[in-house]
Amino acid sequence: MTAAFARLWAEIAPIGLDPAGGYRRYALSDPELILRDWFRNQADRRDMTVTDDGNGNLFAWWGRQWAPGTVLTGSHFDSVPHGGGYDGPLGIVSAFLAVDRLRAAGVTPAKPIGVAAFVEEEGGRFGVPCLGSRLLTGAIDPDTAAALCDTDGVSFGEALGARPAGALPALASRVGAVVELHIEQGRALEVPVGVASAIWPHGRWRLDFTGHGDHAGTTRMADRHDPMLTFAYTVLAADDEARQAGALATIARVSVQPNATNAIPSLVRAWLDARAADPATMERLVEAIVKRAMDRAAHDRTELVVEPESASPEVTFDTALADRLSTLLGGVPVLPTGAGHDAGVLSAHVPTAMLFVRNPTGVSHSPAEHASDEDCAAGVEALATVLGELAA
Amino acid sequence: MTAAFARLWAEIAPIGLDPAGGYRRYALSDPELILRDWFRNQADRRDMTVTDDGNGNLFAWWGRQWAPGTVLTGSHFDSVPHGGGYDGPLGIVSAFLAVDRLRAAGVTPAKPIGVAAFVEEEGGRFGVPCLGSRLLTGAIDPDTAAALCDTDGVSFGEALGARPAGALPALASRVGAVVELHIEQGRALEVPVGVASAIWPHGRWRLDFTGHGDHAGTTRMADRHDPMLTFAYTVLAADDEARQAGALATIARVSVQPNATNAIPSLVRAWLDARAADPATMERLVEAIVKRAMDRAAHDRTELVVEPESASPEVTFDTALADRLSTLLGGVPVLPTGAGHDAGVLSAHVPTAMLFVRNPTGVSHSPAEHASDEDCAAGVEALATVLGELAA
Repeated sequence: MTAAFARLWAEIAPIGLDPAGGYRRYALSDPELILRDWFRNQADRRDMTVTDDGNGNLFAWWGRQWAPGTVLTGSHFDSVPHGGGYDGPLGIVSAFLAVDRLRAAGVTPAKPIGVAAFVEEEGGRFGVPCLGSRLLTGAIDPDTAAALCDTDGVSFGEALGARPAGALPALASRVGAVVELHIEQGRALEVPVGVASAIWPHGRWRLDFTGHGDHAGTTRMADRHDPMLTFAYTVLAADDEARQAGALATIARVSVQPNATNAIPSLVRAWLDARAADPATMERLVEAIVKRAMDRAAHDRTELVVEPESASPEVTFDTALADRLSTLLGGVPVLPTGAGHDAGVLSAHVPTAMLFVRNPTGVSHSPAEHASDEDCAAGVEALATVLGELAA
Repeated sequence: MTAAFARLWAEIAPIGLDPAGGYRRYALSDPELILRDWFRNQADRRDMTVTDDGNGNLFAWWGRQWAPGTVLTGSHFDSVPHGGGYDGPLGIVSAFLAVDRLRAAGVTPAKPIGVAAFVEEEGGRFGVPCLGSRLLTGAIDPDTAAALCDTDGVSFGEALGARPAGALPALASRVGAVVELHIEQGRALEVPVGVASAIWPHGRWRLDFTGHGDHAGTTRMADRHDPMLTFAYTVLAADDEARQAGALATIARVSVQPNATNAIPSLVRAWLDARAADPATMERLVEAIVKRAMDRAAHDRTELVVEPESASPEVTFDTALADRLSTLLGGVPVLPTGAGHDAGVLSAHVPTAMLFVRNPTGVSHSPAEHASDEDCAAGVEALATVLGELAA
């Protein structure tokens, strides 16, 4: 299986590689469209029919599409800018190989198996993570999703070429189980494969710091209303508050107007990503950060507007299912994660589980993200075992 | 003259207006190319020959080009992103109107008058301010200038369509005087027109903060090497040190890799703009900021590399000339500025003066930059008086 994995993996490895490092596989951009063609081609090779749910999500079917008891697997192709190659695609490649593994073993599942490629999981292009699974489950309104714009002003609806179809009717009665395989994104997993217990609640807030644009060479320090100062203070406050709370807060994306060396900004727009083990801790954390930012804005004579952009509630995966899969796989560890996933969105509607593949350095969302071919092959074997059991 | 000014000003007012506010008139971009065509057209209307120095600078001539004793005036068309409309173009429009004023008065100057449109004064596209005047005077090597790239990777040489020609031979023996008219950029001028005494020394430094790219949802705060923290601390340190030194320090431009909400950055690149009344104060200021940034980098386990990008030494304009012009204009104030100008570059080679037009709010490099038509008309009258005297 290691050689089979390495061969299939090599087919997609060059797609969307960026000369500056890592991948740029934004949803519905050229590299992701090439990966979608690759997906259709893989399905053809396996006599699997491909359907599109009208939301940008693709499904390759072994068995009758959406028939009751359907077992969904797969993941997403899109990456963060300069991201690693495993976050997402590993779950799709592993799903096709797991189908091969089951067929080689002569297994004929009683229930349909659908391999999914969800669109815009990272929110790297249109800003809302898990956009495809949110649409499929009705967690976001199709018109709201259609109006989301990328940094070039292209809307999701334009990129999709249509108004999204929205929720699949009777999803919960059609799908019996969801299993998404994903590279682990921390260093907590010390064996090749594990099972997810929960996803920490997390959210994104947009912070608009506004001040007075002015000339950097002629405006006295005392006369300034510089929103960069308020922004900088907030970055440090978020770090400090997260450490105190034993939680996570990150400000990693920023956009400055006019972003010129010699012009005091009129606007600094930044995004706060916050996560914690429970919703109350996360809420307290964000409140504390915003309070400190507001106080500093008063000091700097700037203004701050905070806009929630996405909220992902705490996800506890189906405990009985997680325990069953852990046992099935010989007692592998069951562990939580801070990263959001389409499986987390689906888990509100359908019994859902995740398999994690070991990530030795714990690095993710970076070109340095890596899993060994041997561990990936172990992931395929585990996924085949799980799909065989759930679709039996 | 107020009506004549308003009419001519209205011709260029719509060019390069940005729907998001202010102007985007980057050097050799479409709006600036339209302004250059307008320049040629204005020269034609006045039977002035237009020459190009091979560096991207245009000159409209009343009299024989570059003959000994030439009096240069004019300014630049390019703006900072979302900048005001006066910074630069006012000096060019006023120069054409001053020519009209002299001709209407029947003046025939003994010496040639050249109206200049210098390229890339703001450094808003290729990063080096006063690029055109630096090339004309030999202050920057043509190959170095040709290789400067904009954010799309287009080089100045490509945008120009040629290797820059470099220094004009015997500039100092051809040009007798330079007078640039410019909107004042602070609130120090309380009458319509003033004369410049000096430009504070200033410089730009590029700060590259590097760390480890990683997933914002799965990397513990204690495990991070987050360059955004070091950057944020440095923004606040620069502000603090500048206030203590009675100088100016601004970090207003930043570029983040990968700039994704859920990915700890691997690189935060920022630019420091520092200015002070004397070179020693500016050097001490930058040293103090860099020292604090380096200490913080050690604390954050990130790295910082500091690269000087441009240095503009202190400029003291020709004192005798400034006093002469002040007296000629009825004793108008003589005042320093923190803003760089092509006239500052030229002053190292040729007797140079600047006229300032009142800016009631002191706002510049912002859509809110403004001067009244009456004050602009007073600027034209003053410039005509000065040109008539210097070219007599």
